[in-house]
Amino acid sequence: MFRIDLNCDLGESFGAYKMGRDAEIVPYVTSVNIACGFHAGDPGVMHNTVNLALERGIAIGAHPGLPDLYGFGRRIMDISPQEAYDWVIYQIGALDAFIRAKGGTMRHVKPHGALYNMASRNSKLADAIAEAVYHVNPELILVGLSGSELIHSGKRIGLKTASEVFADRTYQEDGSLTPRGAKGALIDDPEQAVKQVVRMVKDGKVRSQQGSDIPIVAETVCIHGDGSHAVSFASRIHEALSLEGIALTASIR
Amino acid sequence: MFRIDLNCDLGESFGAYKMGRDAEIVPYVTSVNIACGFHAGDPGVMHNTVNLALERGIAIGAHPGLPDLYGFGRRIMDISPQEAYDWVIYQIGALDAFIRAKGGTMRHVKPHGALYNMASRNSKLADAIAEAVYHVNPELILVGLSGSELIHSGKRIGLKTASEVFADRTYQEDGSLTPRGAKGALIDDPEQAVKQVVRMVKDGKVRSQQGSDIPIVAETVCIHGDGSHAVSFASRIHEALSLEGIALTASIR
Amino acid sequence: MFRIDLNCDLGESFGAYKMGRDAEIVPYVTSVNIACGFHAGDPGVMHNTVNLALERGIAIGAHPGLPDLYGFGRRIMDISPQEAYDWVIYQIGALDAFIRAKGGTMRHVKPHGALYNMASRNSKLADAIAEAVYHVNPELILVGLSGSELIHSGKRIGLKTASEVFADRTYQEDGSLTPRGAKGALIDDPEQAVKQVVRMVKDGKVRSQQGSDIPIVAETVCIHGDGSHAVSFASRIHEALSLEGIALTASIR
Amino acid sequence: MFRIDLNCDLGESFGAYKMGRDAEIVPYVTSVNIACGFHAGDPGVMHNTVNLALERGIAIGAHPGLPDLYGFGRRIMDISPQEAYDWVIYQIGALDAFIRAKGGTMRHVKPHGALYNMASRNSKLADAIAEAVYHVNPELILVGLSGSELIHSGKRIGLKTASEVFADRTYQEDGSLTPRGAKGALIDDPEQAVKQVVRMVKDGKVRSQQGSDIPIVAETVCIHGDGSHAVSFASRIHEALSLEGIALTASIR
Repeated sequence: MFRIDLNCDLGESFGAYKMGRDAEIVPYVTSVNIACGFHAGDPGVMHNTVNLALERGIAIGAHPGLPDLYGFGRRIMDISPQEAYDWVIYQIGALDAFIRAKGGTMRHVKPHGALYNMASRNSKLADAIAEAVYHVNPELILVGLSGSELIHSGKRIGLKTASEVFADRTYQEDGSLTPRGAKGALIDDPEQAVKQVVRMVKDGKVRSQQGSDIPIVAETVCIHGDGSHAVSFASRIHEALSLEGIALTASIR
Repeated sequence: MFRIDLNCDLGESFGAYKMGRDAEIVPYVTSVNIACGFHAGDPGVMHNTVNLALERGIAIGAHPGLPDLYGFGRRIMDISPQEAYDWVIYQIGALDAFIRAKGGTMRHVKPHGALYNMASRNSKLADAIAEAVYHVNPELILVGLSGSELIHSGKRIGLKTASEVFADRTYQEDGSLTPRGAKGALIDDPEQAVKQVVRMVKDGKVRSQQGSDIPIVAETVCIHGDGSHAVSFASRIHEALSLEGIALTASIR
Repeated sequence: MFRIDLNCDLGESFGAYKMGRDAEIVPYVTSVNIACGFHAGDPGVMHNTVNLALERGIAIGAHPGLPDLYGFGRRIMDISPQEAYDWVIYQIGALDAFIRAKGGTMRHVKPHGALYNMASRNSKLADAIAEAVYHVNPELILVGLSGSELIHSGKRIGLKTASEVFADRTYQEDGSLTPRGAKGALIDDPEQAVKQVVRMVKDGKVRSQQGSDIPIVAETVCIHGDGSHAVSFASRIHEALSLEGIALTASIR
Repeated sequence: MFRIDLNCDLGESFGAYKMGRDAEIVPYVTSVNIACGFHAGDPGVMHNTVNLALERGIAIGAHPGLPDLYGFGRRIMDISPQEAYDWVIYQIGALDAFIRAKGGTMRHVKPHGALYNMASRNSKLADAIAEAVYHVNPELILVGLSGSELIHSGKRIGLKTASEVFADRTYQEDGSLTPRGAKGALIDDPEQAVKQVVRMVKDGKVRSQQGSDIPIVAETVCIHGDGSHAVSFASRIHEALSLEGIALTASIR
């Protein structure tokens, strides 16, 4: 039977600043990635978001980012593998304490933004992140872009991994995402997005922007929690995948 | 047999900014309180400081502070018990991950600066901090000012506690420290400081600034790690207590 | 002829975080207070907000706050007059550079949140803030709570001042605002709010929560720019004051 | 007559963190670059450092950096020209207010660390920075690496510029500095450093690491204010240049 995890970034508010429709989006996902206070989130937001996820019984992961609240962790920064290692350890630990205080368990780690993107291509950063995750808890699942260096590093070190695909982004022939800002990077039509996901899950393929089919491993789909159409899109994709007989679950084979 | 723990705040550097003579002071203490990135410290500093403490085999504790790097956590801020709770959970978790990654164990938690002072007098903040510690790990020892609300809260909730005394500070008749800046707040003479500590440990008494003896519980002594005389003072007090036959140990009865 | 200034706090977004309906609210106000990057705002937001105000031709002021983005500058902090002085100088200068780069002129300074509240009651902080404003530019108008220490300090040092009143807040017999959170602190009914403002402007009086009339100087009214009813309320109060024949202008007698 | 400016980065302390030997170094320099609170410095430090420079009667400049206190502004970040523009405006303004409050005048602007390096090679960032400086005050002198894009941008827009050279760094054949960390990047021998500076000033040449002489414009020399040998090196170079009959002055032809 086909299966897929639906994940969403959560807990990205900060102090008086609200971001995301967390409570509205959680009914449609099977796992959440909670910001850890570096690029977004604060201890109070983390606490509340952990509670929200535990109440729904969905899987919880850490969403560590670069120490750049101002840039929301999206700015590429020239960092060393050692820094990546230390920053990931710190953030996993901070979130884990809230989960443990409630008797829950952290399931996975998915880097955020520029850290995610850099670790997709840079094997040294990828190794450092994978090691950090492994050293804190070798049972954690490492979530990264399907086909990325991060997934390779995770497997190499002995972590379970979850290959992430995107419903609303187009792909290049080398399996990378078409860069935001480039023409045709985003898929606006929900039906097209759903079709792309179904095909990735069932056939292990995606049509690249160049027109050829490329193989892709789809174990988790990123659902966006912000923006005006986020909730309706999440609802739509959740329903469509169910109708296709694809099990929605955070468990990884 | 008499015993005392010698503790020191460690890991207070930040980025390019160096503070404290960490490597020089650790030979003289039996436990360290490591800053967790709010009032001081950063993930790289935390990692290195955990390594330093593990190499020396001394007890490691978290030193959570207010989120105020600019004020070094010394500025009183009007915070809610909920905020104190969340901030302490976060910081304990962040440090704990570095310790766990190395196979070590966190022994205690000692709040820093204004958080320590506010929790000495404010029972609601004290309760919130004690609960945070307990919820993360009920085996942790809570370190607070001897006779303070924080110690009371820790005992009430079921934590082991360590009552902290100061060698180089004078006391008021109510058992509180003479406020920094007030006349006679600091004891500059190392011999007088040593005598004060020995008496607190052996007799359970300290002479207040008003001239009367007051009872005091002394389970751990704060050794400062910064300043020009820090190392020689630490060495002197370490030697003097040993000569008095007082066992230097982080273990709490 | 009666006159009043309608002021609004603007430019409180930060990085990826949006706050306030700045573009919608500016048509209804005669002056704006722009956050300067300490409690809210960032250089890009400041630049855009200065442009917005200059395009509308409305008066621009600095809105300096405490260095506490996490607490949005609302948290009381124990700061020295020297710190208040330095923080206000810094923030005025930062905003002023954007205004000068566009050929504009800064008209006033209004402290934000906890800094505003502390300076209402604490004459030493009030003096420090007034001095900071005066030293940067003695032509600047100092905006503060009507009847507050800040207004007294401004007058004493030789600054023009603008006494601020609130449409949607109730007053105590001593002229202070009923604290947020206390019963009846907020006026929800727009008509009652309008009546309160008209009476403050025309009669120089406000009915206190205790039922007696107290004298009040009303030179500027604070219009909130956030919340679901902000724009309609701003529109309503703008219209009502015009109909009462009260001139809406940022110029101070 | 030959002339040169000796400049030093100043005011890099932050809160409880001290950095640099500011008071000891100022007797040997003719201009200072004061950190503006982004990569280092805080309002209190800026205030004190402005006072220090005004007392000595030396020229004052702004030293704007990236918003990265943790990385001390040395980390390359992927920023837009618009961000560079806004950040430079903000920081110039903040510092200028302290100078104006004391009746002084800002003379120049020299970007810091990664911002300086990026603006040396990236003409769009260089243009943005030069425009920011020009828009705040077209009389300001723009200081940048000799031969860099920043100097070109400054001249293009109509600013006076000061070409900076380094006494203790070696050069590549293309006129760039040998990267820190590369072999032979630093000149440890004070006499060799002095000789290099004298030759740059008098002959307009420097011997590259590859062994050939390259032309170089030397209008200001960077003197480091931190490190154990900073003061003695500053004293030595000050003395040596004077003995060579080179006038030490902040004035630019």
